[in-house]
Amino acid sequence: MDKLKAGVIGATGYAGFELVRLLLAHPEVELKSVSSVSYKGEWISDIYPQLTGICDLVLTDDEAVTSDCDIIFASLPAGHSEPMAKKCFESGKLFIDMGADFRLKDEKDYTEWYGGHYSETELHEAAVYSIPELHRRLLKNIKDTKDVKSTKGIENIKESEESESFSHKKGLIIANPGCYVTSICLGLYPAIAAGAVDTESIIADSKSGATGAGRGLALNTHFTECNEAFSPYKTACHRHTPEIEQVLNEISGKSFKLTFVPHLLPANRGIESTIYASFKEGFDFLKVREIYEKAYGEEKFVKILPDGMTANIKNIKYSNFCHISLHEDKRTGRLIIVSVLDNMVKGAAGQAVQNMNIACGFEEDTALCMIPPAF
Amino acid sequence: MDKLKAGVIGATGYAGFELVRLLLAHPEVELKSVSSVSYKGEWISDIYPQLTGICDLVLTDDEAVTSDCDIIFASLPAGHSEPMAKKCFESGKLFIDMGADFRLKDEKDYTEWYGGHYSETELHEAAVYSIPELHRRLLKNIKDTKDVKSTKGIENIKESEESESFSHKKGLIIANPGCYVTSICLGLYPAIAAGAVDTESIIADSKSGATGAGRGLALNTHFTECNEAFSPYKTACHRHTPEIEQVLNEISGKSFKLTFVPHLLPANRGIESTIYASFKEGFDFLKVREIYEKAYGEEKFVKILPDGMTANIKNIKYSNFCHISLHEDKRTGRLIIVSVLDNMVKGAAGQAVQNMNIACGFEEDTALCMIPPAF
Amino acid sequence: MDKLKAGVIGATGYAGFELVRLLLAHPEVELKSVSSVSYKGEWISDIYPQLTGICDLVLTDDEAVTSDCDIIFASLPAGHSEPMAKKCFESGKLFIDMGADFRLKDEKDYTEWYGGHYSETELHEAAVYSIPELHRRLLKNIKDTKDVKSTKGIENIKESEESESFSHKKGLIIANPGCYVTSICLGLYPAIAAGAVDTESIIADSKSGATGAGRGLALNTHFTECNEAFSPYKTACHRHTPEIEQVLNEISGKSFKLTFVPHLLPANRGIESTIYASFKEGFDFLKVREIYEKAYGEEKFVKILPDGMTANIKNIKYSNFCHISLHEDKRTGRLIIVSVLDNMVKGAAGQAVQNMNIACGFEEDTALCMIPPAF
Amino acid sequence: MDKLKAGVIGATGYAGFELVRLLLAHPEVELKSVSSVSYKGEWISDIYPQLTGICDLVLTDDEAVTSDCDIIFASLPAGHSEPMAKKCFESGKLFIDMGADFRLKDEKDYTEWYGGHYSETELHEAAVYSIPELHRRLLKNIKDTKDVKSTKGIENIKESEESESFSHKKGLIIANPGCYVTSICLGLYPAIAAGAVDTESIIADSKSGATGAGRGLALNTHFTECNEAFSPYKTACHRHTPEIEQVLNEISGKSFKLTFVPHLLPANRGIESTIYASFKEGFDFLKVREIYEKAYGEEKFVKILPDGMTANIKNIKYSNFCHISLHEDKRTGRLIIVSVLDNMVKGAAGQAVQNMNIACGFEEDTALCMIPPAF
Repeated sequence: MDKLKAGVIGATGYAGFELVRLLLAHPEVELKSVSSVSYKGEWISDIYPQLTGICDLVLTDDEAVTSDCDIIFASLPAGHSEPMAKKCFESGKLFIDMGADFRLKDEKDYTEWYGGHYSETELHEAAVYSIPELHRRLLKNIKDTKDVKSTKGIENIKESEESESFSHKKGLIIANPGCYVTSICLGLYPAIAAGAVDTESIIADSKSGATGAGRGLALNTHFTECNEAFSPYKTACHRHTPEIEQVLNEISGKSFKLTFVPHLLPANRGIESTIYASFKEGFDFLKVREIYEKAYGEEKFVKILPDGMTANIKNIKYSNFCHISLHEDKRTGRLIIVSVLDNMVKGAAGQAVQNMNIACGFEEDTALCMIPPAF
Repeated sequence: MDKLKAGVIGATGYAGFELVRLLLAHPEVELKSVSSVSYKGEWISDIYPQLTGICDLVLTDDEAVTSDCDIIFASLPAGHSEPMAKKCFESGKLFIDMGADFRLKDEKDYTEWYGGHYSETELHEAAVYSIPELHRRLLKNIKDTKDVKSTKGIENIKESEESESFSHKKGLIIANPGCYVTSICLGLYPAIAAGAVDTESIIADSKSGATGAGRGLALNTHFTECNEAFSPYKTACHRHTPEIEQVLNEISGKSFKLTFVPHLLPANRGIESTIYASFKEGFDFLKVREIYEKAYGEEKFVKILPDGMTANIKNIKYSNFCHISLHEDKRTGRLIIVSVLDNMVKGAAGQAVQNMNIACGFEEDTALCMIPPAF
Repeated sequence: MDKLKAGVIGATGYAGFELVRLLLAHPEVELKSVSSVSYKGEWISDIYPQLTGICDLVLTDDEAVTSDCDIIFASLPAGHSEPMAKKCFESGKLFIDMGADFRLKDEKDYTEWYGGHYSETELHEAAVYSIPELHRRLLKNIKDTKDVKSTKGIENIKESEESESFSHKKGLIIANPGCYVTSICLGLYPAIAAGAVDTESIIADSKSGATGAGRGLALNTHFTECNEAFSPYKTACHRHTPEIEQVLNEISGKSFKLTFVPHLLPANRGIESTIYASFKEGFDFLKVREIYEKAYGEEKFVKILPDGMTANIKNIKYSNFCHISLHEDKRTGRLIIVSVLDNMVKGAAGQAVQNMNIACGFEEDTALCMIPPAF
Repeated sequence: MDKLKAGVIGATGYAGFELVRLLLAHPEVELKSVSSVSYKGEWISDIYPQLTGICDLVLTDDEAVTSDCDIIFASLPAGHSEPMAKKCFESGKLFIDMGADFRLKDEKDYTEWYGGHYSETELHEAAVYSIPELHRRLLKNIKDTKDVKSTKGIENIKESEESESFSHKKGLIIANPGCYVTSICLGLYPAIAAGAVDTESIIADSKSGATGAGRGLALNTHFTECNEAFSPYKTACHRHTPEIEQVLNEISGKSFKLTFVPHLLPANRGIESTIYASFKEGFDFLKVREIYEKAYGEEKFVKILPDGMTANIKNIKYSNFCHISLHEDKRTGRLIIVSVLDNMVKGAAGQAVQNMNIACGFEEDTALCMIPPAF
């Protein structure tokens, strides 16, 4: 059988290049086409010498990518995805949006945090937001997308897993989640689904490597400004906040807000989230640990570390794994969850490939079995 | 007049060397003597080539330092300071302990967190714990040390500032505070003194450069294990916790506990603490900002950054400054305090020199006016 | 067919772990057994949490590895490989030595630079030293090892490529080259084989990431000593020097010495060698560029970068590639060769797997097709 | 007596800010005025929060700086200094140019390497180029500038030290040397002055921290591109080459060229130069070491490290010191000189202040006695 043709719009950005790297190693798809506004007409290996002798694609434009390919990944600034998503959806293609344009269900949230509007309301309704460990059923069974809307808890999400993959007969838009969102929601999901913590008490203190800021030049990611420096940024006003709340509210079935503060880490890759929440009555540390182990026991990419170990970004760099370690502050009655992942892989390109694998009926871990290096 | 003679016990450790560096530039004291268990008999400039052509002291032992000097800084592992402190105290010298042995007023806390006991109870009672911005009165007026015990709030601490410096007639032991403690307590003091936040809600998420772990070799500070890595450690069980609570309880006049989680940062220097606390009724962000500006308005080393700026360790590295920025999470009613300092200077050696300056009647900023470099 | 069983002696060292990582992803072998002196009896995933959920091997001892496996990689301190190599060789196994014990043909060199002696002379004669791009014929055709000795130039080495792989009938010892050696010899081989440069003029100024120093704790690789630091070490007296000269002398057919100075880089991975040599009469930059392109034109892992580009360790990290860029100092008549590789992959574990692949008759690039990440 | 008024043109660039930092701590001058094209009208402490509470200057323009001040430091892109230098020179002021506009004596060199022309030839003739350890006599005795031109060797330069400082009666232009130039020329001066090495054999392989590239944003100094990366740049074509040769030719009294290759180091500060040169007949390592110790024996800022130690940028960071270690490659007859300095201090702002101190008759080390921190 012919391989599906995949393409990347915005291939010279950091998430775009990481997709290129993963797709080149994917046995079920062929990387057919890559585009860039800034470097159109150049060899991608001139922009990324990493590809010397490996990939001889010439950067083209988004038109060519959407025409040539069955599966289109779009890594674009906020507000640019809709027209491409529409074209792909209408021609029965799989469109995976790496940006935020299809993530927020409520247009009001989008307008408040991103400043734009939705032109194609039905597209946004049809789009499937997916952290695979929480939402994969939605990708396997996309006949009835109304079902997604009615979801009121993660148990519901998980219960019916009859599957019908992406089939070329009908287009599909996948909203690939934000990097911080994935880190925090994977960290909190079992506790919140079980009602083990006070949702009003949640504080997420996250730290991200500088690739999170992308390839665009800026003073705070100038080497000498970022190296040997450390600081929060967008303190309690980062755009991933409403997305985190959307996912967590969906899981808990109720509406609550959390405090989220991201920090810029002098390292290339990785997100670490230290998440604080007060135990609810009836729950203690041991019980919560069991809940976590059960929740993720069969997951390939999410690992609960044994007691006594602490999750560290160094142990998941360059891989699709999310490590979670659980800690207790007995003195104050708080659960402390440490969740780490590679912002470029599980937090972006790897998760997108994972979503593609599910939607296309491939093995979910295809091209994602990279063993994290130790250093 | 002859300069006072200063000495450093444990001069080849990181805090010890930083003291050497500061004392060599101090116009009011002469660095007379330095000791090291591991390198006794060697030139200090052979261990630290930074001193080539600058300092030709030979490393000696603690006996020599305590005999030769008027002012003794001791940078020793927990449990080793008492005998030296006693000797110095009894011979009318100033003993500044960089370690934890004289920090905790309650021996039970010491035993619980450090595992040892107090042999010389009176010494511990006589010792003055001093973050200068909070306790400098105690150093200026040391006639009546019982006064220290009765302190029930920071206003009380500050009210009577009649001064009588360290005078050679009577020994003095200063317990120099922990690095995390200084960062968190300077960050919280105005809010707590004013009763502006719910003390039960406080969470301090701190990150420290690797010098905090000292010069001793360990796997987690091996370059390739620490570089491009990030993780909390001693999660909610770091030894600085009871010391933070001792200071904050003293300020608030009541007993409460907080959650404190330190993280190891892949950088040489600096501590950043992101501190979360819920506003109490009657207090809002503007009012709290005013309280902070008033509290530190006349302080040389503690600066409240203007609205819109965020404290960053890069802006205080290699200096004795503590920068504090204030942020609000309106959505959840939380105050977020970002407090940064150089763990080796304001968090250790610089603060010790500041304490010495006060106790000896020097200008408080003598030898501490280093302007932070930008990179 | 059953997979060959592979084992790693010294699996918790850096080169050892990197082998584990590569072998776990190798489709033709099964990682059967791993050993460690320090951690015998522990799960390898407790030492390297990267392996959580991926590998459940328990660390054993070298006896078990040599008994259980067909292919044994030994990553040991100098002087420890001989007895294991002997046992493997005699029982018809493939022994790949990651250390220096079988690299130097002349025992006098070994004694001078490493301080030990050869007990089993025949083993050393039988051992095949292999940088695959230069010596792969020796692994494919190991019938006549005398042929190796008589080689007087790289053309000779390459001319007869009749192949007979490692076959289980006869043991084989492969001496896997040093990391600096690989970087410098790949950089110089075409120029020297062609006689294009004055061999007396060669200076190699190399810089290595800190993984090159291994996992053992030492002051110069303590984070705060290595970070924001830079210096040469073992200036003109590094043990790789005689090995570099052995390879280059073999290529040139004559005896010469070079100056080699390694430096410690504040980065985890990668070796960069800037190599200086004066052009010989009759050779200019264009001609030399042609020679390089021809020499490596068909190589999968060695790439000559286009004119105007400069090799950078960031472009080959985590991969088996060696990038070489060529530069000219017209003003002084010097050729400047920049050669970069990942010291842990092409400089150690990757090259060892490449050698195994050749010796076992697998595709040479099996398990080595990692595309270098961009960041 | 009134302090002299000093000003910095281009104060928000890296060299400019470093000057501000040093001048604020200088007891003999008052930092009166600072300018910036990009940030005119803003508080300098808004651009550099390091200055919060320390300096309340508002950034102005170059007109104001040249009018208000007696001593003007100009840190400007190539080609912009001449008009300001002229104005200052004519009004009897001291103008210290941090850039390259007055460094090259031969206009042809300037045109070839920088692409511009000299409009005011007499200014260039009058300008004094000064690495203080080599040229300080020229600043002390500026009556007879023709004397400078006739200098044919470093002995000549040093012989007559009758001094007449900058005196307000006559303007003075000082060309402050390039950072690489200072590192390499201090490293080579004694050997070349003594004729101990073959000048045709010299190769300088230098590595600089990223501050050397300045504050301007560029892809190669974007954090994620520079961190964990390493590469040469401007290989054998860096603009400092003719300046190095000008100084070394002046010392040797003959014309020769060297190979110079700079590399970008993933660190903030520091230049390390590893310099290779063949011994000339009649000179050996011991003799050369004596020559170096004699040459720099009385220098405050240049230190020859004891045998067995290797110069490291970590030991001179944030200070005005230059450390030099000497090594021998006996096997090839080469001298290897390792020279390290802080590119922002001894390589730029510190050296400029040192030049100012000499020209103004202050103690040469005023405001430059910073002891290098260890980490």
